[in-house]
Amino acid sequence: MKRDLLSLQDITNDEMQKLLDLGSRFKANKGKLSSELAGKAVALVFQKPSNRTRVSFEIAIWQLGGKCLYLAPQEIDLGKRESVEDVAKTLSRYLDCIVARTFSHEDVVALAKHSSAVIINGLSDLFHPCQGLADVLTIKEKFGTAKATVAYIGDGNNVCHSLLLGCARIGYDVAIATPKEYEPHADVVKIAEKIAKQTGTKILLTRKPQDAVKGAHVIYSDVWVSMGQEAETAKRKKDFKDFQVNKSLVQHAHKDYIFMHCLPAHRGLEVTAEIIDGPHSVVFDQAENRLHMQKAALSFLLGDK
Amino acid sequence: MKRDLLSLQDITNDEMQKLLDLGSRFKANKGKLSSELAGKAVALVFQKPSNRTRVSFEIAIWQLGGKCLYLAPQEIDLGKRESVEDVAKTLSRYLDCIVARTFSHEDVVALAKHSSAVIINGLSDLFHPCQGLADVLTIKEKFGTAKATVAYIGDGNNVCHSLLLGCARIGYDVAIATPKEYEPHADVVKIAEKIAKQTGTKILLTRKPQDAVKGAHVIYSDVWVSMGQEAETAKRKKDFKDFQVNKSLVQHAHKDYIFMHCLPAHRGLEVTAEIIDGPHSVVFDQAENRLHMQKAALSFLLGDK
Amino acid sequence: MKRDLLSLQDITNDEMQKLLDLGSRFKANKGKLSSELAGKAVALVFQKPSNRTRVSFEIAIWQLGGKCLYLAPQEIDLGKRESVEDVAKTLSRYLDCIVARTFSHEDVVALAKHSSAVIINGLSDLFHPCQGLADVLTIKEKFGTAKATVAYIGDGNNVCHSLLLGCARIGYDVAIATPKEYEPHADVVKIAEKIAKQTGTKILLTRKPQDAVKGAHVIYSDVWVSMGQEAETAKRKKDFKDFQVNKSLVQHAHKDYIFMHCLPAHRGLEVTAEIIDGPHSVVFDQAENRLHMQKAALSFLLGDK
Repeated sequence: MKRDLLSLQDITNDEMQKLLDLGSRFKANKGKLSSELAGKAVALVFQKPSNRTRVSFEIAIWQLGGKCLYLAPQEIDLGKRESVEDVAKTLSRYLDCIVARTFSHEDVVALAKHSSAVIINGLSDLFHPCQGLADVLTIKEKFGTAKATVAYIGDGNNVCHSLLLGCARIGYDVAIATPKEYEPHADVVKIAEKIAKQTGTKILLTRKPQDAVKGAHVIYSDVWVSMGQEAETAKRKKDFKDFQVNKSLVQHAHKDYIFMHCLPAHRGLEVTAEIIDGPHSVVFDQAENRLHMQKAALSFLLGDK
Repeated sequence: MKRDLLSLQDITNDEMQKLLDLGSRFKANKGKLSSELAGKAVALVFQKPSNRTRVSFEIAIWQLGGKCLYLAPQEIDLGKRESVEDVAKTLSRYLDCIVARTFSHEDVVALAKHSSAVIINGLSDLFHPCQGLADVLTIKEKFGTAKATVAYIGDGNNVCHSLLLGCARIGYDVAIATPKEYEPHADVVKIAEKIAKQTGTKILLTRKPQDAVKGAHVIYSDVWVSMGQEAETAKRKKDFKDFQVNKSLVQHAHKDYIFMHCLPAHRGLEVTAEIIDGPHSVVFDQAENRLHMQKAALSFLLGDK
Repeated sequence: MKRDLLSLQDITNDEMQKLLDLGSRFKANKGKLSSELAGKAVALVFQKPSNRTRVSFEIAIWQLGGKCLYLAPQEIDLGKRESVEDVAKTLSRYLDCIVARTFSHEDVVALAKHSSAVIINGLSDLFHPCQGLADVLTIKEKFGTAKATVAYIGDGNNVCHSLLLGCARIGYDVAIATPKEYEPHADVVKIAEKIAKQTGTKILLTRKPQDAVKGAHVIYSDVWVSMGQEAETAKRKKDFKDFQVNKSLVQHAHKDYIFMHCLPAHRGLEVTAEIIDGPHSVVFDQAENRLHMQKAALSFLLGDK
């Protein structure tokens, strides 16, 4: 029975720990080639361009001894030139795994349903589990198993959802500050709360960035306008204007706080240059951890059991 | 002396059998890596996007131990940024083989003429030999060496041409039903008839789908509007309206008939959903066979003799 | 301390000789696989499409045992979706080397500054060092260490700059004929003259193609309108009309002269068909030498010391 990774719902708390251990081990052996994916072929099927996801997956698959194909947005044209179901069935005949980067999460779900190949969500409008895995590893590297508090400031989006689920699984408290109507999806919060009960994690939803940041070990920010939302730019800039991570906001955080961002960032909007380029920022460590955690996920899902 | 594969004219009947045996053997060892193409580099030079051709060739080349480069339509811009002749001569300095997917068959011919690299036609307006190879393997898997009859319903296009030549080489009877002015190219039919004489194959050209399908073991359909013909959509839909493969048509076929389509398909146009998604359909086996037969062709043309 | 290759300024005269020896050795073992780049990952980050640079680098990296990723113009969108600095820092976490093909040379410089990965200039508006390396190897193959004279006719562009620096390092005299306002950059000429003093090279700048070509062993031509200059087409065609390499011009050259062009070429503009397709032309040898000299550069910069 194949395992997919569409969301951090798809793994257990124990598996999350196991993945973190695996990722740490890959990081300790950074740059080493291995053979967990020998003879396995993985396609990156992307509906939107990407830098980090593309490069970190290509390198991950290559370092694990597998074959990677990149299928750019204009090539597969998922659901347009051909139905998602037919694409899933056809690609399953050639491939062991598909990393899908889609606009709609439904497309990732449909791929998983109709494909015998393992499906990994490389970002959808609802979840970004590989980012969530990298984020939790980054926090764990800085704060270990101590009870850290993570403040997410901004849009309750896919990155926020996966961060929330990942922290809940591992036991980091999460405080999410969003403007009205930009809250994380109620269903996702419900799932996170259920997990949080098992792990003793506190979850706070607020409209006040200061409340979320108060004493936080981690301050996390993301773009206000994601790819595909360009038409809403003016409205969003207005709605988010009090949600910038800047000098004034971070003074409420723990003195050894780290600043995280999944990149690309827009300095002067969701975060000021002095914060993201300052001594507390770990954004490039975080980007690097995409590689190590994706190697963990790939070998977990595709390696010999 | 290099051998190219621009059309199924380029191989003999014996070589066709040999390729089918080779393809079957690759299929029996599905997913195994080997080294027929070790040290060999192959570029996919495509003028139009592709799913099956792209992915099946990348995987084929990789599984055979070779290096594959994908050159997207906007990159080489064959004959625009640079003449086909100069591209052929330049790429021959770096590569062992070029799989070309072009609009005009003349471009494939020009590449072959000016290139010391082996040229494989990955689809042109005149032929689709790799599809033809996969199609014949698919038929052979279901009906063996028995005298099967193949009914092609629709546009007498590149796919039809290669199916016709492939079946003639192997001895499957072919009945082609097309509207007026959509007949297969007269020159191709002449070549097929010459081959058919050697192999005792019957070829029928008709305007009546029912006549073609009568007792047929295989019903084959293809899109009514190919890439690049979008301007003719309305006219073609009208011209082909009586050439849909549907429940009413297939009742004339052999009871164990198989339905084939090279995909992508348009349900409700050239074929109804109940046929292509029904129990007689082998379209995904057919898609898979692209991989195995392309491995056969690559190792035949490029492997050590 | 990493070494970049942004321009032929970045290497010494001795290193230039060493690279040529290395390139010749790779050429003598054409098609052989080796392992200088084993475990190393190189990305091609291109702002404009390319045939020779793309394919020769992909093949070079593969033959040396490394991993190559091609990041097309629309994917990274250097400096637009994300600042050059952030891209440099992120990619450095995943990659050992970036081959950058940019419009502005400043972008290559910025990449080198902010990246821990080795940066190779795969063409910028100011320099084309890999072309320069291939050009000098091509001249050396034909004329050895004899005192050859190289006449460059046309636009004093990136290709001209790198040819000038390369020839100066090795001791080939250079005569450059350009229209007014198309002279090579004064700063580059100054650097070349400084190198030329060490190697005893003569450099001539003129407006008269006949003077440059007189007795020359090499006649070198390049397009009048480079990618990105399309708006200036009419003006440039007029300004360069007396700078065509044709039968009448080449009669002033040495009888065993060779014709060089970095391609793509426009027959009837900067060169006539009878010259570029004639017996003196070495343009495809020159294209092939891109591969061998890039292997030399990659193993020099990235191989184990």
